[in-house]
Amino acid sequence: MKKYQLRRLSDQPIITAADVNPSHPQFRVMGAFNPAACRFGDEILLLLRVAEAVDTLPGKIQVPIVQQLDGQFQLVIKMFAEPEGDYDPRVVQIGDQAYLTSLSHLRLARSRDGIHFTVDSNPFIFPERADESFGVEDARITLLDGQYWITYTAVSENGPGVGLIVTKDFVSFERRGMIIPPPNKDACLFPEKINGFYYLLHRPMVADIGKPSVWLARSTDGIHWGDHRFLFGAAGTQWEHLKIGAGPEPIRTDDGWLVCYHGASVDHEYSLALALLDRDDPTQLLDRSTEPLMVPELEWEKTGFFPNVVFTNGWVQLPDGRILVYYGAADYCVGVAELVTV
Amino acid sequence: MKKYQLRRLSDQPIITAADVNPSHPQFRVMGAFNPAACRFGDEILLLLRVAEAVDTLPGKIQVPIVQQLDGQFQLVIKMFAEPEGDYDPRVVQIGDQAYLTSLSHLRLARSRDGIHFTVDSNPFIFPERADESFGVEDARITLLDGQYWITYTAVSENGPGVGLIVTKDFVSFERRGMIIPPPNKDACLFPEKINGFYYLLHRPMVADIGKPSVWLARSTDGIHWGDHRFLFGAAGTQWEHLKIGAGPEPIRTDDGWLVCYHGASVDHEYSLALALLDRDDPTQLLDRSTEPLMVPELEWEKTGFFPNVVFTNGWVQLPDGRILVYYGAADYCVGVAELVTV
Repeated sequence: MKKYQLRRLSDQPIITAADVNPSHPQFRVMGAFNPAACRFGDEILLLLRVAEAVDTLPGKIQVPIVQQLDGQFQLVIKMFAEPEGDYDPRVVQIGDQAYLTSLSHLRLARSRDGIHFTVDSNPFIFPERADESFGVEDARITLLDGQYWITYTAVSENGPGVGLIVTKDFVSFERRGMIIPPPNKDACLFPEKINGFYYLLHRPMVADIGKPSVWLARSTDGIHWGDHRFLFGAAGTQWEHLKIGAGPEPIRTDDGWLVCYHGASVDHEYSLALALLDRDDPTQLLDRSTEPLMVPELEWEKTGFFPNVVFTNGWVQLPDGRILVYYGAADYCVGVAELVTV
Repeated sequence: MKKYQLRRLSDQPIITAADVNPSHPQFRVMGAFNPAACRFGDEILLLLRVAEAVDTLPGKIQVPIVQQLDGQFQLVIKMFAEPEGDYDPRVVQIGDQAYLTSLSHLRLARSRDGIHFTVDSNPFIFPERADESFGVEDARITLLDGQYWITYTAVSENGPGVGLIVTKDFVSFERRGMIIPPPNKDACLFPEKINGFYYLLHRPMVADIGKPSVWLARSTDGIHWGDHRFLFGAAGTQWEHLKIGAGPEPIRTDDGWLVCYHGASVDHEYSLALALLDRDDPTQLLDRSTEPLMVPELEWEKTGFFPNVVFTNGWVQLPDGRILVYYGAADYCVGVAELVTV
């Protein structure tokens, strides 16, 4: 994996939380980050994760969730006494139940040049199922069989799982349910069938026995999944010790399927790296990074809602072959880099 | 759920570890427990979980695993310094890696009367895949489409997932791969299709956000699974606070699908209870136990390899309609009860 590098195209974020208006009057936008990406007509679309929160009151914490009331899902603001001591800014433990401090939805941003984006005024996908009561996060977009398949993290009090939505026009969409059960995240669908099967990368979370790892699954219809296999795990290095998970949809190259993934260190620093899978048999790992291609270096990558994060779940290959990589920084904003061969 | 009771048919176990010969000369049988069950011809078959261990040496602990060596999976005995202090007798933490102290395989036992069983001399299913390197555990058997579908827990260093094996004769079998990825256990397949779909109950494990819960999944072929839905979770009572998971294959009754499940208390006491799902739409929970139907009471249920456990993953409905429930006790032996209507 020595031939690739990730080069930042700007030393500034291309989208920040300040560019996004809240979806509800009660909300403040905490972050616009971790976008999925695709080409659509003449445009490049990003599907941003927009995290919104309700301001805390003295000694109180307010947690936004969606909940079924009177037969439909509605926004509910739960109020709790603020826990004592330090806590992860993303998660708060109230008794037996962990809550997210923000509620995420997915929102489109559009660009002609891939650098300057206009963010839609309204959400594209807002949580509206029991398994999305804590939000929808970190989408991936794959163009396959003439439609766009959007995999995303559906979070609820029962943990995070992988949901699937399909669209042809980015106006309307159809939900296909939860395709990988909790606790699981970071699922991306391959952009073509291989030997008659759909393939998906996903990341089981660790409970009791287990180590951070990326898995491969197989499907006959893209909706029902089986033949789950361990693909690769943390190799013993610090930078991917805590978590390891796939990023955007794999890209087919002459050398094989190119996979971009993230590692999280024991200090919760998120970095980016690459792996290569066999073109005809993606269960075969050909190569992968021994060290990260990109680590948080710029001020806005090192400070934010959750500091020291570069994380990608969106890249696009342009007609001229260039690959633009969109990445979330510090759970607050979006940067852009180019994947170059050296 | 007031109309059912579980009545023990014997105050003695019907099979214990002492009835089972080891599969390898190095091994001692630690437990023969948690059997799947089915009728096959004139016989009742149990598919026991047989847990085997290698004796510890002074200051050392020996961990049996299977590992690929020279192109095939072989038994490997790993030796470590014994950890200081108390530890769960089932799991030992060595550095970053949790190991099981025993290796489980699945072995058949046969009976004409459902009470007196003869245990086979050899394993039926021995771990032989990368995702089974720590063993195969806690099977469920479902007769469906003219063959027996065996779901089981496949455990490896990457966590526990759900494997599927099918057999027609309990002599040969075919592996169908991992159908639900880690971390997950306690999967049981419904014995008939409902509105054209196969259905399965399973139990996601909790990592970070989440609560113990039983989920339902749907399939078009029994091998690839989707539409995962939360079905029911711990109701706030102590006896099911820590874990809750489905037992054997659901049985169709006039009232609906009868599901037997286990709860584990904060003190790791495992009890048995019942739930009822709609016959035509198993996503609909009609009723479930508010307190356990059976708790560990007898000496051999309260002491053993892992004390205070009654756990079932096998029951059979006899031609006369009676339902015999086989249950593992204290991770050591097997008891039998009858499910009676009161």
